Amino acid sequence: MKQRDTVAIIGVGLIGSSIGLALRRGRWARRVIGVGRRNETLQTALDRGAISQATTNLAEGVKNAEFVIVCTPVCHIVDYVQQTARNAPEGVLITDVGSTKGEIVAALEGALSAGATFVGSHPMAGSEKTGPEFADARLFEGRAAIVTPAESSPGAAVEEIEEFWKVLGARVTRMSPHAHDAAVATISHVPHIAASALALGTPQELISLVGGGWLDTTRVAAGDVELWRQILTQNRTHVLQSLAEFEKTLASFRVALARGDNAELTRLLEQGKTRRDAVAN
Amino acid sequence: MKQRDTVAIIGVGLIGSSIGLALRRGRWARRVIGVGRRNETLQTALDRGAISQATTNLAEGVKNAEFVIVCTPVCHIVDYVQQTARNAPEGVLITDVGSTKGEIVAALEGALSAGATFVGSHPMAGSEKTGPEFADARLFEGRAAIVTPAESSPGAAVEEIEEFWKVLGARVTRMSPHAHDAAVATISHVPHIAASALALGTPQELISLVGGGWLDTTRVAAGDVELWRQILTQNRTHVLQSLAEFEKTLASFRVALARGDNAELTRLLEQGKTRRDAVAN
Repeated sequence: MKQRDTVAIIGVGLIGSSIGLALRRGRWARRVIGVGRRNETLQTALDRGAISQATTNLAEGVKNAEFVIVCTPVCHIVDYVQQTARNAPEGVLITDVGSTKGEIVAALEGALSAGATFVGSHPMAGSEKTGPEFADARLFEGRAAIVTPAESSPGAAVEEIEEFWKVLGARVTRMSPHAHDAAVATISHVPHIAASALALGTPQELISLVGGGWLDTTRVAAGDVELWRQILTQNRTHVLQSLAEFEKTLASFRVALARGDNAELTRLLEQGKTRRDAVAN
Repeated sequence: MKQRDTVAIIGVGLIGSSIGLALRRGRWARRVIGVGRRNETLQTALDRGAISQATTNLAEGVKNAEFVIVCTPVCHIVDYVQQTARNAPEGVLITDVGSTKGEIVAALEGALSAGATFVGSHPMAGSEKTGPEFADARLFEGRAAIVTPAESSPGAAVEEIEEFWKVLGARVTRMSPHAHDAAVATISHVPHIAASALALGTPQELISLVGGGWLDTTRVAAGDVELWRQILTQNRTHVLQSLAEFEKTLASFRVALARGDNAELTRLLEQGKTRRDAVAN
């Protein structure tokens, strides 16, 4: 990635601040301007060194930016990308980090001011923790970053966005917005629902007994509720499909157990173990 | 807990070796004899300092033991407790660490040689990792340990077992074997099935894209297959009940999402978050 003079980050939560920290530590940008809604959050991002300047005014924040990353909850992304395109200099390159891509990329396709280019992306990193106080310059190291060009995306812009994620240490994969949404329904959104349902179904009086298994399996249920409601809603069709698949698999376990079918129960547990063992940690 | 001269641990995997290590570091036993089936595993436990002597002969291993902990897969526990009762000195106190308690406690109730006392227990600690190489003297610190007396268990023996777990740093809870099995179906066995089903349902080509959420939610699916098949089978009735509850909760998520009922989806995610936030980590 070439070094930038001015980069703007819209939304300085965990992801936005982690990007800012990585860009500043690597000297990939002379100035990193954080745009946020709350002064307190912006101040924390400044204190952490994640941004070099802060503003609550988007137009002001992007007016000299050649590269802008929108790191807000998914329901604001289309609006903020459009505002950025209207207010940034000619030639601005814009990406986002939203967990859904189909709706966002479709809404922006052909809808931007001339001279602005948007290419969507989604780093598979994050945490149930939120806010710039948890910013981590290495958050993306070794993680997948999915870049989701639209039909009309210029190849050079797509490659620039891919370079950006590589600079942050991510492993880049290119997918269509549709394929992305189907994939994350399975590997992220349905696991979130499962974790939430397991936590919700644990009676208060058993909470003091839980061990490491419960803690791991339910960890993501502590994530921000409104953020996740938006994600599940934006990706509804794929989530409903993956959820139906998950319910079918659970039913296979239930039937094998109810029938005392040890061979089948072993086969199911082994398949799960094989897939899990394919990844470290 | 009073200091013991000779303690025997049947099964020197992760749990057995961690107990041995804690007892030896705290000087709670002059000798800790490890009984196992494989010389290689016993050697690793010796090398780790988890046991002071090793044998593959159970009768030999327990012949001077005043306190014995059976740390094997659940399907062997009843047999090994009975062998211990027949071969250990008069007055021996025996416990176990099995993840199910109803079948085990019922099978041993009134079935032991005179002079031997068994009180079941289950520490809510462990890992998807197995074997003495992962032994950790602090594995039980701050974790719950559930002690499950039978109707006929002498009060003094129950208290001794509770003292033993406190010495290892656990928070002790006393429950009936039945209440224990219902509880762990919800907080451990169904989460295991959910993790396994999520892992199994992830297509091979998406494995390279998974992020921290998937890794956490599916972690326990890497656990030992035969161990878990036995646990689920021994606790079948309660697991089927808890699994049905979990399936109902998932269906609530599905219906809320399908209907676009944002208020209900928010309510469900908030309930999950509230329960998860009640515990650290």
